[in-house]
Amino acid sequence: MTEALSINDVQSLLDSSPFNRFLGLHVESMDAETGRIAMRLPLRPELERGGPIAEQFHGGPVAALIDTVGDFAVSILVGGGVPTVNLRVDYLRPSGGAFLLGTATVRRLGRTFGVVDVEVTDPEGRLTAVGRGCFGARPG
Amino acid sequence: MTEALSINDVQSLLDSSPFNRFLGLHVESMDAETGRIAMRLPLRPELERGGPIAEQFHGGPVAALIDTVGDFAVSILVGGGVPTVNLRVDYLRPSGGAFLLGTATVRRLGRTFGVVDVEVTDPEGRLTAVGRGCFGARPG
Amino acid sequence: MTEALSINDVQSLLDSSPFNRFLGLHVESMDAETGRIAMRLPLRPELERGGPIAEQFHGGPVAALIDTVGDFAVSILVGGGVPTVNLRVDYLRPSGGAFLLGTATVRRLGRTFGVVDVEVTDPEGRLTAVGRGCFGARPG
Amino acid sequence: MTEALSINDVQSLLDSSPFNRFLGLHVESMDAETGRIAMRLPLRPELERGGPIAEQFHGGPVAALIDTVGDFAVSILVGGGVPTVNLRVDYLRPSGGAFLLGTATVRRLGRTFGVVDVEVTDPEGRLTAVGRGCFGARPG
Repeated sequence: MTEALSINDVQSLLDSSPFNRFLGLHVESMDAETGRIAMRLPLRPELERGGPIAEQFHGGPVAALIDTVGDFAVSILVGGGVPTVNLRVDYLRPSGGAFLLGTATVRRLGRTFGVVDVEVTDPEGRLTAVGRGCFGARPG
Repeated sequence: MTEALSINDVQSLLDSSPFNRFLGLHVESMDAETGRIAMRLPLRPELERGGPIAEQFHGGPVAALIDTVGDFAVSILVGGGVPTVNLRVDYLRPSGGAFLLGTATVRRLGRTFGVVDVEVTDPEGRLTAVGRGCFGARPG
Repeated sequence: MTEALSINDVQSLLDSSPFNRFLGLHVESMDAETGRIAMRLPLRPELERGGPIAEQFHGGPVAALIDTVGDFAVSILVGGGVPTVNLRVDYLRPSGGAFLLGTATVRRLGRTFGVVDVEVTDPEGRLTAVGRGCFGARPG
Repeated sequence: MTEALSINDVQSLLDSSPFNRFLGLHVESMDAETGRIAMRLPLRPELERGGPIAEQFHGGPVAALIDTVGDFAVSILVGGGVPTVNLRVDYLRPSGGAFLLGTATVRRLGRTFGVVDVEVTDPEGRLTAVGRGCFGARPG
Protein backbone atom coordinates (compact mmCIF):
# COMPACT_ATOMS: atom_id res chain seq x y z
CA MET A 1 0.00 0.00 0.00
CA THR A 2 1.40 3.39 -0.94
CA GLU A 3 1.26 6.36 1.34
CA ALA A 4 -2.09 7.99 2.03
CA LEU A 5 -3.13 10.96 -0.11
CA SER A 6 -3.76 14.26 1.65
CA ILE A 7 -6.64 16.57 0.75
CA ASN A 8 -4.15 18.78 -1.10
CA ASP A 9 -2.87 15.79 -3.07
CA VAL A 10 -6.42 14.95 -4.07
CA GLN A 11 -7.18 18.52 -5.12
CA SER A 12 -3.99 18.54 -7.18
CA LEU A 13 -4.87 15.24 -8.81
CA LEU A 14 -8.31 16.65 -9.62
CA ASP A 15 -6.83 19.82 -11.09
CA SER A 16 -4.48 17.82 -13.28
CA SER A 17 -7.51 16.68 -15.29
CA PRO A 18 -8.73 19.28 -17.79
CA PHE A 19 -12.34 18.11 -17.50
CA ASN A 20 -12.39 18.19 -13.71
CA ARG A 21 -10.73 21.60 -13.79
CA PHE A 22 -13.41 22.81 -16.21
CA LEU A 23 -16.08 21.54 -13.80
CA GLY A 24 -14.36 23.44 -11.01
CA LEU A 25 -14.61 20.51 -8.61
CA HIS A 26 -13.52 21.34 -5.08
CA VAL A 27 -12.71 18.78 -2.39
CA GLU A 28 -14.80 19.74 0.64
CA SER A 29 -13.74 17.01 3.02
CA MET A 30 -12.20 13.57 3.01
CA ASP A 31 -11.24 10.75 5.32
CA ALA A 32 -8.23 8.73 4.20
CA GLU A 33 -9.15 5.90 6.56
CA THR A 34 -12.57 5.11 5.14
CA GLY A 35 -12.45 6.71 1.69
CA ARG A 36 -15.33 9.00 2.52
CA ILE A 37 -14.99 12.13 0.41
CA ALA A 38 -17.18 15.07 -0.56
CA MET A 39 -16.76 17.41 -3.53
CA ARG A 40 -18.57 20.56 -4.52
CA LEU A 41 -19.59 21.24 -8.11
CA PRO A 42 -20.42 24.93 -8.67
CA LEU A 43 -22.98 25.84 -11.30
CA ARG A 44 -21.51 27.58 -14.31
CA PRO A 45 -23.57 28.60 -17.34
CA GLU A 46 -22.17 25.82 -19.53
CA LEU A 47 -23.50 23.19 -17.10
CA GLU A 48 -27.14 24.25 -17.25
CA ARG A 49 -29.73 22.05 -18.88
CA GLY A 50 -31.70 24.96 -20.25
CA GLY A 51 -35.46 25.05 -20.56
CA PRO A 52 -38.00 27.14 -18.72
CA ILE A 53 -36.37 26.84 -15.30
CA ALA A 54 -32.99 28.52 -14.91
CA GLU A 55 -30.15 27.37 -12.68
CA GLN A 56 -30.67 23.65 -13.13
CA PHE A 57 -27.78 21.32 -13.78
CA HIS A 58 -27.94 19.10 -16.85
CA GLY A 59 -27.89 15.40 -15.95
CA GLY A 60 -24.50 14.95 -17.62
CA PRO A 61 -22.53 16.97 -15.08
CA VAL A 62 -24.44 15.18 -12.30
CA ALA A 63 -23.21 11.86 -13.69
CA ALA A 64 -19.70 13.27 -14.06
CA LEU A 65 -19.71 14.44 -10.43
CA ILE A 66 -20.77 10.96 -9.29
CA ASP A 67 -18.08 9.34 -11.42
CA THR A 68 -15.31 11.55 -10.12
CA VAL A 69 -16.17 11.60 -6.44
CA GLY A 70 -16.74 7.83 -6.48
CA ASP A 71 -13.47 7.23 -8.24
CA PHE A 72 -11.52 9.35 -5.77
CA ALA A 73 -13.07 7.51 -2.83
CA VAL A 74 -11.23 4.39 -3.99
CA SER A 75 -8.17 6.34 -5.13
CA ILE A 76 -7.50 7.76 -1.68
CA LEU A 77 -7.69 4.25 -0.20
CA VAL A 78 -5.31 2.68 -2.72
CA GLY A 79 -2.99 5.64 -3.12
CA GLY A 80 -3.48 6.59 -6.77
CA GLY A 81 -5.94 7.01 -9.62
CA VAL A 82 -8.12 4.03 -10.57
CA PRO A 83 -10.31 3.30 -13.61
CA THR A 84 -14.11 3.47 -13.52
CA VAL A 85 -15.48 0.06 -14.47
CA ASN A 86 -19.14 0.99 -14.45
CA LEU A 87 -21.45 3.66 -13.14
CA ARG A 88 -25.14 3.94 -12.37
CA VAL A 89 -27.12 7.11 -11.70
CA ASP A 90 -30.70 7.51 -10.49
CA TYR A 91 -32.09 10.99 -10.90
CA LEU A 92 -34.53 11.71 -8.09
CA ARG A 93 -35.31 15.42 -8.54
CA PRO A 94 -34.13 18.34 -10.67
CA SER A 95 -30.66 19.36 -9.50
CA GLY A 96 -30.94 23.10 -9.01
CA GLY A 97 -29.09 25.85 -7.17
CA ALA A 98 -25.66 27.43 -7.06
CA PHE A 99 -23.82 24.15 -6.50
CA LEU A 100 -24.15 20.45 -5.89
CA LEU A 101 -22.43 18.41 -3.22
CA GLY A 102 -21.39 14.85 -4.02
CA THR A 103 -20.53 12.58 -1.09
CA ALA A 104 -19.01 9.15 -1.59
CA THR A 105 -19.00 6.17 0.75
CA VAL A 106 -17.00 3.03 -0.01
CA ARG A 107 -19.22 -0.01 0.51
CA ARG A 108 -16.57 -2.59 -0.24
CA LEU A 109 -12.97 -2.58 -1.35
CA GLY A 110 -11.55 -5.89 -2.51
CA ARG A 111 -8.36 -6.85 -4.28
CA THR A 112 -9.62 -6.08 -7.77
CA PHE A 113 -12.75 -3.91 -7.36
CA GLY A 114 -14.28 -1.33 -5.12
CA VAL A 115 -17.99 -0.47 -4.86
CA VAL A 116 -18.89 3.09 -3.94
CA ASP A 117 -22.17 4.88 -3.21
CA VAL A 118 -22.51 8.57 -4.00
CA GLU A 119 -25.24 10.93 -2.85
CA VAL A 120 -25.82 14.26 -4.56
CA THR A 121 -27.50 17.07 -2.66
CA ASP A 122 -28.47 20.62 -3.58
CA PRO A 123 -27.70 23.73 -1.49
CA GLU A 124 -30.83 23.12 0.59
CA GLY A 125 -29.65 19.62 1.44
CA ARG A 126 -32.22 17.83 -0.71
CA LEU A 127 -31.10 14.56 -2.25
CA THR A 128 -31.30 15.06 -6.03
CA ALA A 129 -29.52 11.94 -7.32
CA VAL A 130 -27.93 8.74 -6.09
CA GLY A 131 -25.10 6.95 -7.83
CA ARG A 132 -23.24 3.72 -7.45
CA GLY A 133 -20.07 2.72 -9.21
CA CYS A 134 -17.60 -0.10 -9.53
CA PHE A 135 -13.97 0.96 -9.76
CA GLY A 136 -10.71 -0.85 -10.25
CA ALA A 137 -8.72 -1.29 -7.05
CA ARG A 138 -5.22 -0.95 -8.48
CA PRO A 139 -3.73 2.41 -9.32
CA GLY A 140 -2.57 2.41 -12.92
CA MET B 1 -49.05 11.23 -30.52
CA THR B 2 -47.70 14.63 -31.48
CA GLU B 3 -46.05 15.26 -34.81
CA ALA B 4 -42.68 13.67 -35.49
CA LEU B 5 -39.53 15.70 -34.87
CA SER B 6 -37.25 16.29 -37.83
CA ILE B 7 -33.47 16.10 -37.60
CA ASN B 8 -33.39 19.91 -37.60
CA ASP B 9 -35.90 20.04 -34.75
CA VAL B 10 -33.70 17.67 -32.76
CA GLN B 11 -30.55 19.70 -33.43
CA SER B 12 -32.42 22.86 -32.38
CA LEU B 13 -33.64 21.18 -29.19
CA LEU B 14 -30.07 20.07 -28.48
CA ASP B 15 -28.72 23.56 -29.08
CA SER B 16 -31.28 25.07 -26.73
CA SER B 17 -29.46 23.38 -23.85
CA PRO B 18 -26.33 25.23 -22.72
CA PHE B 19 -24.58 22.03 -21.67
CA ASN B 20 -25.28 20.19 -24.91
CA ARG B 21 -24.18 23.29 -26.83
CA PHE B 22 -20.96 23.35 -24.82
CA LEU B 23 -20.38 19.69 -25.69
CA GLY B 24 -20.92 20.56 -29.35
CA LEU B 25 -23.19 17.56 -29.92
CA HIS B 26 -24.16 17.06 -33.54
CA VAL B 27 -26.98 14.83 -34.75
CA GLU B 28 -25.48 12.52 -37.36
CA SER B 29 -28.56 10.52 -38.28
CA MET B 30 -31.95 9.60 -36.91
CA ASP B 31 -35.00 7.52 -37.73
CA ALA B 32 -38.25 8.95 -36.40
CA GLU B 33 -40.00 5.58 -36.85
CA THR B 34 -37.76 3.55 -34.55
CA GLY B 35 -36.07 6.21 -32.42
CA ARG B 36 -32.65 5.18 -33.64
CA ILE B 37 -30.38 8.21 -33.43
CA ALA B 38 -26.64 8.88 -33.59
CA MET B 39 -24.77 11.92 -32.27
CA ARG B 40 -21.17 12.96 -32.59
CA LEU B 41 -19.23 14.42 -29.66
CA PRO B 42 -16.08 16.22 -30.80
CA LEU B 43 -13.10 16.30 -28.47
CA ARG B 44 -12.37 19.75 -27.08
CA PRO B 45 -9.60 20.42 -24.58
CA GLU B 46 -12.00 20.84 -21.65
CA LEU B 47 -13.29 17.28 -22.15
CA GLU B 48 -9.94 15.53 -21.78
CA ARG B 49 -9.20 13.34 -18.80
CA GLY B 50 -5.58 14.34 -18.65
CA GLY B 51 -2.79 12.05 -17.64
CA PRO B 52 0.07 10.67 -19.69
CA ILE B 53 -2.02 9.90 -22.78
CA ALA B 54 -3.40 12.92 -24.64
CA GLU B 55 -6.65 13.07 -26.57
CA GLN B 56 -8.66 10.83 -24.27
CA PHE B 57 -12.15 11.75 -23.19
CA HIS B 58 -12.90 11.88 -19.47
CA GLY B 59 -15.58 9.38 -18.46
CA GLY B 60 -17.94 12.21 -17.52
CA PRO B 61 -18.54 13.42 -21.08
CA VAL B 62 -18.94 9.79 -22.17
CA ALA B 63 -21.75 9.40 -19.62
CA ALA B 64 -23.23 12.72 -20.72
CA LEU B 65 -23.21 11.61 -24.37
CA ILE B 66 -25.00 8.39 -23.44
CA ASP B 67 -27.56 10.30 -21.38
CA THR B 68 -28.35 12.76 -24.14
CA VAL B 69 -28.46 10.43 -27.12
CA GLY B 70 -30.55 7.94 -25.15
CA ASP B 71 -32.94 10.64 -24.03
CA PHE B 72 -33.44 11.94 -27.56
CA ALA B 73 -34.16 8.42 -28.84
CA VAL B 74 -37.31 8.46 -26.72
CA SER B 75 -37.97 12.16 -27.33
CA ILE B 76 -38.22 11.73 -31.08
CA LEU B 77 -40.73 8.91 -30.60
CA VAL B 78 -42.95 10.81 -28.19
CA GLY B 79 -42.57 14.24 -29.78
CA GLY B 80 -40.81 16.21 -27.02
CA GLY B 81 -38.19 16.20 -24.29
CA VAL B 82 -38.41 13.52 -21.60
CA PRO B 83 -36.71 13.11 -18.20
CA THR B 84 -33.89 10.64 -17.58
CA VAL B 85 -34.97 8.26 -14.83
CA ASN B 86 -31.73 6.33 -14.54
CA LEU B 87 -28.58 5.66 -16.46
CA ARG B 88 -25.91 2.98 -16.51
CA VAL B 89 -22.53 3.15 -18.19
CA ASP B 90 -19.94 0.40 -18.67
CA TYR B 91 -16.54 1.63 -19.73
CA LEU B 92 -14.88 -0.95 -21.98
CA ARG B 93 -11.77 0.85 -23.23
CA PRO B 94 -10.23 4.31 -23.06
CA SER B 95 -12.27 6.66 -25.29
CA GLY B 96 -9.68 8.36 -27.46
CA GLY B 97 -9.58 10.24 -30.71
CA ALA B 98 -10.98 13.35 -32.31
CA PHE B 99 -14.60 12.47 -31.59
CA LEU B 100 -16.96 9.85 -30.22
CA LEU B 101 -20.10 8.56 -31.87
CA GLY B 102 -23.05 7.61 -29.67
CA THR B 103 -25.78 5.48 -31.25
CA ALA B 104 -29.06 4.80 -29.46
CA THR B 105 -31.54 1.98 -30.01
CA VAL B 106 -34.91 1.92 -28.24
CA ARG B 107 -35.45 -1.54 -26.74
CA ARG B 108 -38.92 -0.88 -25.40
CA LEU B 109 -41.27 2.08 -25.21
CA GLY B 110 -44.25 1.69 -22.92
CA ARG B 111 -46.79 4.14 -21.61
CA THR B 112 -44.67 5.44 -18.77
CA PHE B 113 -41.05 4.38 -19.52
CA GLY B 114 -38.70 3.72 -22.36
CA VAL B 115 -35.52 1.63 -22.22
CA VAL B 116 -32.70 2.60 -24.54
CA ASP B 117 -29.31 1.07 -25.36
CA VAL B 118 -26.43 3.31 -26.40
CA GLU B 119 -23.15 2.26 -27.96
CA VAL B 120 -20.15 4.59 -28.00
CA THR B 121 -17.48 4.13 -30.64
CA ASP B 122 -14.24 5.94 -31.39
CA PRO B 123 -13.13 7.22 -34.82
CA GLU B 124 -11.74 3.77 -35.64
CA GLY B 125 -15.08 2.16 -34.93
CA ARG B 126 -14.00 0.47 -31.69
CA LEU B 127 -16.66 0.11 -29.02
CA THR B 128 -15.41 2.11 -26.01
CA ALA B 129 -18.49 2.16 -23.77
CA VAL B 130 -22.02 0.80 -23.59
CA GLY B 131 -24.88 2.53 -21.85
CA ARG B 132 -28.45 1.76 -20.98
CA GLY B 133 -31.02 4.15 -19.65
CA CYS B 134 -34.59 4.35 -18.51
CA PHE B 135 -36.43 7.49 -19.57
CA GLY B 136 -39.89 8.87 -18.95
CA ALA B 137 -42.25 8.40 -21.89
CA ARG B 138 -44.24 11.62 -21.56
CA PRO B 139 -42.89 14.93 -22.78
CA GLY B 140 -42.94 17.43 -19.91
CA MET C 1 -54.03 6.84 -1.34
CA THR C 2 -55.55 3.51 -0.46
CA GLU C 3 -55.43 2.15 3.06
CA ALA C 4 -52.08 1.16 4.49
CA LEU C 5 -51.06 -2.49 4.34
CA SER C 6 -50.39 -4.23 7.64
CA ILE C 7 -47.52 -6.64 8.17
CA ASN C 8 -50.02 -9.50 7.89
CA ASP C 9 -51.34 -8.13 4.60
CA VAL C 10 -47.81 -8.01 3.26
CA GLN C 11 -47.05 -11.56 4.38
CA SER C 12 -50.28 -12.72 2.74
CA LEU C 13 -49.41 -10.91 -0.49
CA LEU C 14 -45.98 -12.54 -0.40
CA ASP C 15 -47.46 -15.97 0.19
CA SER C 16 -49.86 -15.55 -2.73
CA SER C 17 -46.84 -15.74 -5.07
CA PRO C 18 -45.64 -19.30 -5.70
CA PHE C 19 -42.04 -18.19 -6.15
CA ASN C 20 -41.94 -16.11 -2.98
CA ARG C 21 -43.59 -18.99 -1.12
CA PHE C 22 -40.94 -21.34 -2.45
CA LEU C 23 -38.24 -18.95 -1.22
CA GLY C 24 -39.92 -18.95 2.18
CA LEU C 25 -39.63 -15.18 2.52
CA HIS C 26 -40.70 -13.89 5.92
CA VAL C 27 -41.47 -10.26 6.73
CA GLU C 28 -39.36 -9.38 9.74
CA SER C 29 -40.40 -5.76 10.20
CA MET C 30 -41.94 -2.91 8.27
CA ASP C 31 -42.89 0.72 8.62
CA ALA C 32 -45.92 1.75 6.59
CA GLU C 33 -45.00 5.43 6.96
CA THR C 34 -41.59 5.27 5.29
CA GLY C 35 -41.75 2.01 3.33
CA ARG C 36 -38.85 0.58 5.26
CA ILE C 37 -39.20 -3.19 5.28
CA ALA C 38 -37.01 -6.18 6.10
CA MET C 39 -37.44 -9.78 4.95
CA ARG C 40 -35.63 -12.96 5.88
CA LEU C 41 -34.65 -15.53 3.28
CA PRO C 42 -33.83 -18.91 4.86
CA LEU C 43 -31.29 -21.14 3.16
CA ARG C 44 -32.80 -24.27 1.67
CA PRO C 45 -30.78 -26.81 -0.29
CA GLU C 46 -32.22 -25.72 -3.65
CA LEU C 47 -30.86 -22.20 -3.12
CA GLU C 48 -27.22 -23.18 -2.71
CA ARG C 49 -24.66 -22.28 -5.31
CA GLY C 50 -22.69 -25.45 -4.83
CA GLY C 51 -18.95 -25.69 -5.10
CA PRO C 52 -16.39 -26.44 -2.43
CA ILE C 53 -17.97 -24.25 0.25
CA ALA C 54 -21.33 -25.41 1.56
CA GLU C 55 -24.14 -23.19 2.80
CA GLN C 56 -23.64 -20.37 0.34
CA PHE C 57 -26.54 -18.80 -1.48
CA HIS C 58 -26.42 -18.68 -5.27
CA GLY C 59 -26.50 -15.11 -6.59
CA GLY C 60 -29.89 -15.68 -8.19
CA PRO C 61 -31.82 -15.92 -4.91
CA VAL C 62 -29.89 -12.88 -3.63
CA ALA C 63 -31.14 -10.91 -6.64
CA ALA C 64 -34.65 -12.28 -6.12
CA LEU C 65 -34.58 -11.20 -2.46
CA ILE C 66 -33.53 -7.70 -3.47
CA ASP C 67 -36.25 -7.53 -6.13
CA THR C 68 -39.00 -8.63 -3.77
CA VAL C 69 -38.09 -6.60 -0.70
CA GLY C 70 -37.54 -3.50 -2.86
CA ASP C 71 -40.84 -4.00 -4.62
CA PHE C 72 -42.75 -4.35 -1.36
CA ALA C 73 -41.17 -1.18 0.02
CA VAL C 74 -43.04 0.75 -2.67
CA SER C 75 -46.10 -1.49 -2.49
CA ILE C 76 -46.72 -0.73 1.17
CA LEU C 77 -46.55 3.00 0.45
CA VAL C 78 -48.94 2.89 -2.50
CA GLY C 79 -51.26 0.22 -1.15
CA GLY C 80 -50.78 -2.61 -3.65
CA GLY C 81 -48.38 -4.58 -5.81
CA VAL C 82 -46.22 -2.64 -8.27
CA PRO C 83 -44.07 -3.73 -11.23
CA THR C 84 -40.26 -3.84 -11.10
CA VAL C 85 -38.92 -1.54 -13.82
CA ASN C 86 -35.26 -2.33 -13.33
CA LEU C 87 -32.92 -3.82 -10.77
CA ARG C 88 -29.22 -3.62 -10.02
CA VAL C 89 -27.23 -5.87 -7.71
CA ASP C 90 -23.63 -5.53 -6.54
CA TYR C 91 -22.23 -8.65 -4.94
CA LEU C 92 -19.76 -7.67 -2.23
CA ARG C 93 -18.97 -11.00 -0.55
CA PRO C 94 -20.16 -14.61 -0.65
CA SER C 95 -23.62 -14.79 0.94
CA GLY C 96 -23.32 -17.61 3.43
CA GLY C 97 -25.12 -18.85 6.50
CA ALA C 98 -28.55 -20.08 7.55
CA PHE C 99 -30.40 -17.05 6.21
CA LEU C 100 -30.07 -13.64 4.62
CA LEU C 101 -31.77 -10.46 5.72
CA GLY C 102 -32.83 -7.95 3.06
CA THR C 103 -33.67 -4.43 4.23
CA ALA C 104 -35.20 -1.86 1.90
CA THR C 105 -35.20 1.92 2.18
CA VAL C 106 -37.22 4.09 -0.20
CA ARG C 107 -35.01 6.88 -1.52
CA ARG C 108 -37.68 8.62 -3.55
CA LEU C 109 -41.31 8.00 -4.40
CA GLY C 110 -42.76 10.10 -7.20
CA ARG C 111 -45.96 9.90 -9.16
CA THR C 112 -44.76 7.32 -11.66
CA PHE C 113 -41.82 5.53 -10.04
CA GLY C 114 -39.99 4.88 -6.82
CA VAL C 115 -36.29 4.27 -6.19
CA VAL C 116 -35.37 1.83 -3.44
CA ASP C 117 -32.09 0.74 -1.87
CA VAL C 118 -31.74 -2.75 -0.46
CA GLU C 119 -29.00 -4.06 1.78
CA VAL C 120 -28.40 -7.78 2.22
CA THR C 121 -26.71 -9.05 5.36
CA ASP C 122 -25.74 -12.49 6.57
CA PRO C 123 -26.46 -13.91 10.05
CA GLU C 124 -23.31 -12.25 11.40
CA GLY C 125 -24.49 -8.87 10.15
CA ARG C 126 -21.96 -8.60 7.33
CA LEU C 127 -23.11 -6.75 4.23
CA THR C 128 -22.95 -9.29 1.39
CA ALA C 129 -24.76 -7.42 -1.41
CA VAL C 130 -26.35 -4.07 -2.16
CA GLY C 131 -29.20 -3.56 -4.56
CA ARG C 132 -31.08 -0.67 -6.05
CA GLY C 133 -34.26 -0.81 -8.04
CA CYS C 134 -36.73 1.34 -9.85
CA PHE C 135 -40.36 0.34 -9.39
CA GLY C 136 -43.65 1.59 -10.78
CA ALA C 137 -45.61 3.75 -8.34
CA ARG C 138 -49.11 2.65 -9.30
CA PRO C 139 -50.60 -0.60 -8.10
CA GLY C 140 -51.83 -2.59 -11.07
CA MET D 1 -5.42 -20.09 -20.94
CA THR D 2 -6.90 -23.41 -19.95
CA GLU D 3 -8.57 -25.70 -22.42
CA ALA D 4 -11.92 -24.70 -23.87
CA LEU D 5 -15.07 -26.01 -22.21
CA SER D 6 -17.38 -28.16 -24.32
CA ILE D 7 -21.16 -27.87 -24.19
CA ASN D 8 -21.23 -31.01 -22.06
CA ASP D 9 -18.69 -29.52 -19.66
CA VAL D 10 -20.86 -26.45 -19.30
CA GLN D 11 -24.01 -28.49 -18.70
CA SER D 12 -22.12 -30.50 -16.06
CA LEU D 13 -20.86 -27.35 -14.38
CA LEU D 14 -24.42 -26.02 -14.37
CA ASP D 15 -25.78 -29.23 -12.90
CA SER D 16 -23.19 -29.17 -10.13
CA SER D 17 -24.99 -26.15 -8.67
CA PRO D 18 -28.08 -27.07 -6.67
CA PHE D 19 -29.83 -23.81 -7.57
CA ASN D 20 -29.18 -24.11 -11.28
CA ARG D 21 -30.30 -27.74 -11.13
CA PHE D 22 -33.50 -26.66 -9.39
CA LEU D 23 -34.08 -24.10 -12.16
CA GLY D 24 -33.58 -26.87 -14.71
CA LEU D 25 -31.34 -24.72 -16.89
CA HIS D 26 -30.42 -26.34 -20.17
CA VAL D 27 -27.61 -25.20 -22.46
CA GLU D 28 -29.16 -24.74 -25.89
CA SER D 29 -26.10 -23.61 -27.81
CA MET D 30 -22.69 -22.10 -27.23
CA ASP D 31 -19.66 -20.84 -29.10
CA ALA D 32 -16.38 -21.28 -27.25
CA GLU D 33 -14.66 -18.75 -29.54
CA THR D 34 -16.88 -15.77 -28.76
CA GLY D 35 -18.53 -16.76 -25.49
CA ARG D 36 -21.97 -16.59 -27.02
CA ILE D 37 -24.23 -18.96 -25.13
CA ALA D 38 -27.96 -19.60 -24.83
CA MET D 39 -29.80 -21.37 -22.01
CA ARG D 40 -33.41 -22.41 -21.64
CA LEU D 41 -35.30 -21.97 -18.38
CA PRO D 42 -38.46 -24.09 -18.28
CA LEU D 43 -41.42 -22.84 -16.27
CA ARG D 44 -42.12 -24.89 -13.19
CA PRO D 45 -44.87 -24.04 -10.69
CA GLU D 46 -42.41 -22.76 -8.06
CA LEU D 47 -41.14 -20.10 -10.49
CA GLU D 48 -44.50 -18.43 -11.13
CA ARG D 49 -45.18 -14.97 -9.88
CA GLY D 50 -48.82 -15.69 -9.15
CA GLY D 51 -51.62 -13.21 -9.57
CA PRO D 52 -54.50 -13.20 -12.01
CA ILE D 53 -52.44 -14.32 -15.02
CA ALA D 54 -51.07 -17.85 -14.88
CA GLU D 55 -47.84 -19.07 -16.43
CA GLN D 56 -45.81 -15.94 -15.82
CA PHE D 57 -42.31 -16.11 -14.44
CA HIS D 58 -41.53 -14.13 -11.29
CA GLY D 59 -38.84 -11.50 -11.89
CA GLY D 60 -36.45 -13.31 -9.55
CA PRO D 61 -35.90 -16.31 -11.82
CA VAL D 62 -35.53 -13.94 -14.77
CA ALA D 63 -32.69 -12.18 -12.91
CA ALA D 64 -31.20 -15.56 -11.97
CA LEU D 65 -31.28 -16.69 -15.62
CA ILE D 66 -29.49 -13.50 -16.68
CA ASP D 67 -26.89 -13.94 -13.94
CA THR D 68 -26.12 -17.54 -14.85
CA VAL D 69 -26.06 -17.27 -18.63
CA GLY D 70 -23.96 -14.10 -18.41
CA ASP D 71 -21.55 -15.72 -16.00
CA PHE D 72 -21.08 -18.78 -18.20
CA ALA D 73 -20.40 -16.60 -21.24
CA VAL D 74 -17.23 -15.44 -19.50
CA SER D 75 -16.55 -18.85 -17.94
CA ILE D 76 -16.35 -20.60 -21.29
CA LEU D 77 -13.85 -18.02 -22.50
CA VAL D 78 -11.60 -18.24 -19.46
CA GLY D 79 -11.99 -21.96 -18.84
CA GLY D 80 -13.70 -22.05 -15.45
CA GLY D 81 -16.29 -20.50 -13.15
CA VAL D 82 -16.04 -16.76 -12.43
CA PRO D 83 -17.70 -14.51 -9.84
CA THR D 84 -20.52 -12.11 -10.68
CA VAL D 85 -19.41 -8.60 -9.76
CA ASN D 86 -22.66 -6.83 -10.56
CA LEU D 87 -25.83 -7.36 -12.48
CA ARG D 88 -28.51 -5.16 -13.99
CA VAL D 89 -31.91 -6.21 -15.26
CA ASP D 90 -34.51 -4.19 -17.16
CA TYR D 91 -37.92 -5.81 -17.31
CA LEU D 92 -39.61 -4.92 -20.60
CA ARG D 93 -42.74 -7.10 -20.59
CA PRO D 94 -44.27 -9.87 -18.49
CA SER D 95 -42.23 -13.05 -19.03
CA GLY D 96 -44.85 -15.68 -19.85
CA GLY D 97 -45.01 -19.06 -21.49
CA ALA D 98 -43.58 -22.54 -21.07
CA PHE D 99 -39.96 -21.42 -21.01
CA LEU D 100 -37.59 -18.48 -21.38
CA LEU D 101 -34.48 -18.35 -23.51
CA GLY D 102 -31.51 -16.33 -22.25
CA THR D 103 -28.81 -15.49 -24.78
CA ALA D 104 -25.51 -13.92 -23.73
CA THR D 105 -23.05 -11.91 -25.79
CA VAL D 106 -19.66 -10.88 -24.41
CA ARG D 107 -19.10 -7.18 -25.11
CA ARG D 108 -15.63 -7.00 -23.66
CA LEU D 109 -13.26 -9.34 -21.90
CA GLY D 110 -10.25 -7.76 -20.24
CA ARG D 111 -7.68 -9.06 -17.81
CA THR D 112 -9.75 -8.51 -14.68
CA PHE D 113 -13.37 -8.35 -15.79
CA GLY D 114 -15.78 -9.07 -18.60
CA VAL D 115 -18.97 -7.25 -19.60
CA VAL D 116 -21.83 -9.34 -20.95
CA ASP D 117 -25.23 -8.53 -22.44
CA VAL D 118 -28.11 -10.96 -22.01
CA GLU D 119 -31.41 -10.96 -23.84
CA VAL D 120 -34.39 -12.90 -22.54
CA THR D 121 -37.11 -13.99 -24.94
CA ASP D 122 -40.35 -15.90 -24.50
CA PRO D 123 -41.48 -18.88 -26.61
CA GLU D 124 -42.91 -16.49 -29.21
CA GLY D 125 -39.56 -14.75 -29.56
CA ARG D 126 -40.60 -11.55 -27.83
CA LEU D 127 -37.91 -9.77 -25.84
CA THR D 128 -39.12 -9.71 -22.23
CA ALA D 129 -36.03 -8.51 -20.38
CA VAL D 130 -32.50 -7.30 -21.03
CA GLY D 131 -29.61 -7.75 -18.65
CA ARG D 132 -26.03 -6.63 -18.42
CA GLY D 133 -23.43 -7.87 -16.00
CA CYS D 134 -19.86 -7.43 -14.99
CA PHE D 135 -18.02 -10.64 -14.14
CA GLY D 136 -14.57 -11.45 -12.89
CA ALA D 137 -12.21 -12.71 -15.59
CA ARG D 138 -10.24 -15.19 -13.53
CA PRO D 139 -11.57 -18.63 -12.71
CA GLY D 140 -11.36 -19.47 -9.04
